[in-house]
Amino acid sequence: MGELGDALRELVDAAVRTEVPEAELEAAAVLARELAARLRASARGLHEIARVDDPETGERWYSPVYGPGSPVAPPLVASDTPDGRATGRVTVGKPHEGPPGLVHGGVVATLLDHVLARALRAAGRGGLTATLTVRYRRPVHLGVPLLLTAEMGETDGRRTTAHARLVAEDSPEVVLAEAEGLFIALRAERAADVFSATGRTVGAWTSRS
Amino acid sequence: MGELGDALRELVDAAVRTEVPEAELEAAAVLARELAARLRASARGLHEIARVDDPETGERWYSPVYGPGSPVAPPLVASDTPDGRATGRVTVGKPHEGPPGLVHGGVVATLLDHVLARALRAAGRGGLTATLTVRYRRPVHLGVPLLLTAEMGETDGRRTTAHARLVAEDSPEVVLAEAEGLFIALRAERAADVFSATGRTVGAWTSRS
Repeated sequence: MGELGDALRELVDAAVRTEVPEAELEAAAVLARELAARLRASARGLHEIARVDDPETGERWYSPVYGPGSPVAPPLVASDTPDGRATGRVTVGKPHEGPPGLVHGGVVATLLDHVLARALRAAGRGGLTATLTVRYRRPVHLGVPLLLTAEMGETDGRRTTAHARLVAEDSPEVVLAEAEGLFIALRAERAADVFSATGRTVGAWTSRS
Repeated sequence: MGELGDALRELVDAAVRTEVPEAELEAAAVLARELAARLRASARGLHEIARVDDPETGERWYSPVYGPGSPVAPPLVASDTPDGRATGRVTVGKPHEGPPGLVHGGVVATLLDHVLARALRAAGRGGLTATLTVRYRRPVHLGVPLLLTAEMGETDGRRTTAHARLVAEDSPEVVLAEAEGLFIALRAERAADVFSATGRTVGAWTSRS
């Protein structure tokens, strides 16, 4: 598993950098559609949870941020500890470019949102993002190994805060971006409503108390 | 043009929904690598600007948010007017899922960041995101036509603010998420430094005054 995710991330990178002639692009489009049709021979619905996922832990095979199976994930390689800390390592490439040569600001926000959420989930405080504030301190360049760190802050009932920062691995003293997040755990009955289309019990974004 | 982008977005969607057997996944990975190699026969470097792009207007063919050529773009369909307003329409699918059935919070931030930046760029106020604050009011479901609107706020030298909101097209009175952004235009000499790796003059994120 993960082999197709790797191959498709390579394909995505090749597609946003290609300079082959128009006829080659057309031929590639035909082959891509054939490949899509093959994968669609058996497919889950829009709201169905993947067989490889566990909605109680919140780990997602196809996460657009870190999913090993996701062609759109940079991907972030993340880890966490039960004391409410998380880290992520990533080198962002051409598919996630904003201004020329720089990582898109929205992608920076997405990476930070993930480590924030992961920090509190690691401490048993699942929740949906309620507020996210990102301060962009320096341009973040493509192709540079990046390190993200996040730490859970205050908790108050179903509300938990966290903060995170992004640095380049080789200049860890220079903050490139930082973020604060407020996360709110869903009440069980609200979670049942929000996730009703999945037809499953979903615990990872729900209040445990 | 755009045909390969369309085909690859279809492939990405098929890949995150597929339930075909392991052997089929392996065969698909082989085909995807062959396709990538074909597109790599001629390719631009990590910092090179695509031939189809114009770094003075800031429109990007491979933008990860709205780029017609980008396999990772949802894609947003955006427009703007010179009075500093922008709109975007998008229906987000399985590749950009966060919690089961919902749009990833980072993807919501990315969509809002784009319409904010577009609103001010339309009014001739290019800049990099300095601060982005997103308030998530309601869960944003996959597969629902969404409408984003943004409006430029105050300007002060190289600094410009903007605010934006996200609604479902069929319930425009219910705000799903809203954002405020502060954007700062680069001084010409700073822009020359930030974008030096591209080997090009880049005007869209620079102070015009």
